[in-house]
Amino acid sequence: MTDRGTANLVINGERLWSSLMEMAGIGATTSGGVCRLALSDEDKAGRDLFIRWCQAAGCTCHVDRMGNIFARRAGQDSELPPIMFGSHLDTVPTGGRFDGALGVLAGLEVMRTLEDLNYRTRAPLELVVWTNEEGSRFSPAMLSSAVFAGVIPIETAKVRKDKNGLSFGEELERIGYCGQHEVGGHAPSAFIELHIEQGPILEREQKTIGVVTGVQALRWYEIRLSGQEAHAGTTPMDVRHDALLGAAEVILAVNAIACEAAADGRGTVGFIEATPNGRNVISGSVLLCIDLRHPDDAVLSKMGDSLSNAVLAAASRHGLLVDFKEIVHTPAVIFDEGCISVVREAAERNNYRHRDIISGAGHDAVHLARVTPTAMIFVPCRAGLSHNEAEWATPDDCAAGCSVLLDAIVALDAT
Amino acid sequence: MTDRGTANLVINGERLWSSLMEMAGIGATTSGGVCRLALSDEDKAGRDLFIRWCQAAGCTCHVDRMGNIFARRAGQDSELPPIMFGSHLDTVPTGGRFDGALGVLAGLEVMRTLEDLNYRTRAPLELVVWTNEEGSRFSPAMLSSAVFAGVIPIETAKVRKDKNGLSFGEELERIGYCGQHEVGGHAPSAFIELHIEQGPILEREQKTIGVVTGVQALRWYEIRLSGQEAHAGTTPMDVRHDALLGAAEVILAVNAIACEAAADGRGTVGFIEATPNGRNVISGSVLLCIDLRHPDDAVLSKMGDSLSNAVLAAASRHGLLVDFKEIVHTPAVIFDEGCISVVREAAERNNYRHRDIISGAGHDAVHLARVTPTAMIFVPCRAGLSHNEAEWATPDDCAAGCSVLLDAIVALDAT
Repeated sequence: MTDRGTANLVINGERLWSSLMEMAGIGATTSGGVCRLALSDEDKAGRDLFIRWCQAAGCTCHVDRMGNIFARRAGQDSELPPIMFGSHLDTVPTGGRFDGALGVLAGLEVMRTLEDLNYRTRAPLELVVWTNEEGSRFSPAMLSSAVFAGVIPIETAKVRKDKNGLSFGEELERIGYCGQHEVGGHAPSAFIELHIEQGPILEREQKTIGVVTGVQALRWYEIRLSGQEAHAGTTPMDVRHDALLGAAEVILAVNAIACEAAADGRGTVGFIEATPNGRNVISGSVLLCIDLRHPDDAVLSKMGDSLSNAVLAAASRHGLLVDFKEIVHTPAVIFDEGCISVVREAAERNNYRHRDIISGAGHDAVHLARVTPTAMIFVPCRAGLSHNEAEWATPDDCAAGCSVLLDAIVALDAT
Repeated sequence: MTDRGTANLVINGERLWSSLMEMAGIGATTSGGVCRLALSDEDKAGRDLFIRWCQAAGCTCHVDRMGNIFARRAGQDSELPPIMFGSHLDTVPTGGRFDGALGVLAGLEVMRTLEDLNYRTRAPLELVVWTNEEGSRFSPAMLSSAVFAGVIPIETAKVRKDKNGLSFGEELERIGYCGQHEVGGHAPSAFIELHIEQGPILEREQKTIGVVTGVQALRWYEIRLSGQEAHAGTTPMDVRHDALLGAAEVILAVNAIACEAAADGRGTVGFIEATPNGRNVISGSVLLCIDLRHPDDAVLSKMGDSLSNAVLAAASRHGLLVDFKEIVHTPAVIFDEGCISVVREAAERNNYRHRDIISGAGHDAVHLARVTPTAMIFVPCRAGLSHNEAEWATPDDCAAGCSVLLDAIVALDAT
């Protein structure tokens, strides 16, 4: 079984690309991107198209109570747990054509290839579309895979509201995708998710495949520095309590902390809000949101300590009050060694340049890893851009990712 | 004439305070401040009260086409140009009880005192209320004194619009304060403005009177730094073009530049806007507004050069594009030596602790200084707070400023 008779299993890269572009037409923006928010009319249209395609490829579809769609292709032994793969079809408001859609439509291409060649796996296969991965409309992100994995109760998820006050449950009913199936409870034997890297590493190193070994731990902080609002013209420099000046020192400290934790440390201040934010008024108060990441939980914890020290030092220098909150802490995820090896070997067999890589972003696979052996496959995206209308992956790289996905699925089926 | 028979001219501090508090009731906020925006119903009510008080104190009032109110008290010689004093009655949205109102109502107390004692000056006196000093509703600030001094054409001023699209001219008509008198054209022999310091210097040094010798030069800059929006988790530190990180370096540089120009230099970043301002997105673009001040035009110019160098250096370090604009440049104002001496001597004669001081804020006196010998009198305000509902000056300090104003007016009248 070393070659496992897969020599003839060759995916159709042009068909994959054509389907990617057709899906990108649903919610297409004038700048070449996609806006297909979770449970919007565009999301419904994308789901409808996906189901038509799956049925045409010999799959049967069922939908669970969170709107997760499972397209199942029967195996030789219906008693075996399914091998699961897939991703999501929702996008951020100014999203691209590949984030999520690649993992779903590469899964479809796997189904189509197997159907064309009349290749019957031992285990059933299930291609899944997870609802509301992005979290742009309903927070948190990865909501429905979280319910699937038992991380969030379904009652909690259903009442999440968008900014217009519409609930997840209502909107799911409205688009007709509140299925009858229970969420979770049928454990697959493995889960594999193909995704664009959303970072620049593979492109920079000219690697085609990223063998994803895990996901960084993440900590989010909200820090409010409070000083004294005062007149920019009349207040001497030595009596000021300038909250924005203290905040600037914190921003530099976050960068230094992350650079010290090279190469895997990340530190970002992406959000800043100064009050009263007037040209000629010294800031009385500044709110910063800080994002720290590292694949090693212990290192991340130390980075958090360094941040806390830096904030207190800046506050002390400028006579500011500090409100320091850690608002999110997601521990590191380490994927399943067996699944990682299957992906690495699939990349090897297909002669793709590859490297092990840590995901800097969260994915549905993070939740699936709690309930089943999981791994991910990354392909490069241009300039590392994602969550951006200019997001791009080449047809060759998409096809390469799909080939590794198919190979890994067949390999898992053979074990 | 060394004592000029003014020994009996003593203002009534309690009456001044009572009038200040009664005026503060018009537009009073629940937090103890005042909201009396220019040309609002509250502004009209304040003007009506002011005119009633002035008429009761023996003045005749006229209003010019910009709504500036002149309360005139006849002198012995009606051919002499008037001695002018006053300030403004409008406030910022969350303003205090003293900014502007003190200069107006101290002027009223001067008129009342002279009337009570039947003291007739040689020259006529004119107490003025300038329209729209704050600029909160109609920009720019000090609009109507600018028209009076010929700095802004009246046609330009009249069409200034508030944020609801209502024009200055329409609103002036609506409240019934578009007078018939031409704006300007009758030059006073001098202009004296009493004002709270709006800074902490007098309070810190326990001085009662600030003898204002001039107003700082000011330069405002708008600086946009543009980098590359990217994912906070997936983008390694060494490939980032983080606009907010560059902006933080600029904020520190502004502070350093102003501190190097101690004790009179000022440098403030009060406004910051990051885009897209998301927790987990590296900033693609940041807009900063920077306020630099110094009483010496040449020093301020060098501070501006240092800023430009610092911005370019930060941009170069982080691979950012720079859009650097100087949007406002107000040269330094040096008040009239003779008027300054008159104020200083009045403070001396009254045995008030005093110091020469540079105004960090703009005032109507800046424009008047272009057309007539001008000076200002400052009194302390608590903690240097102004443009703030907690703005506060003590009854004693208000009375002291009023006494110096009266003494200076009588001295000017005697020369």
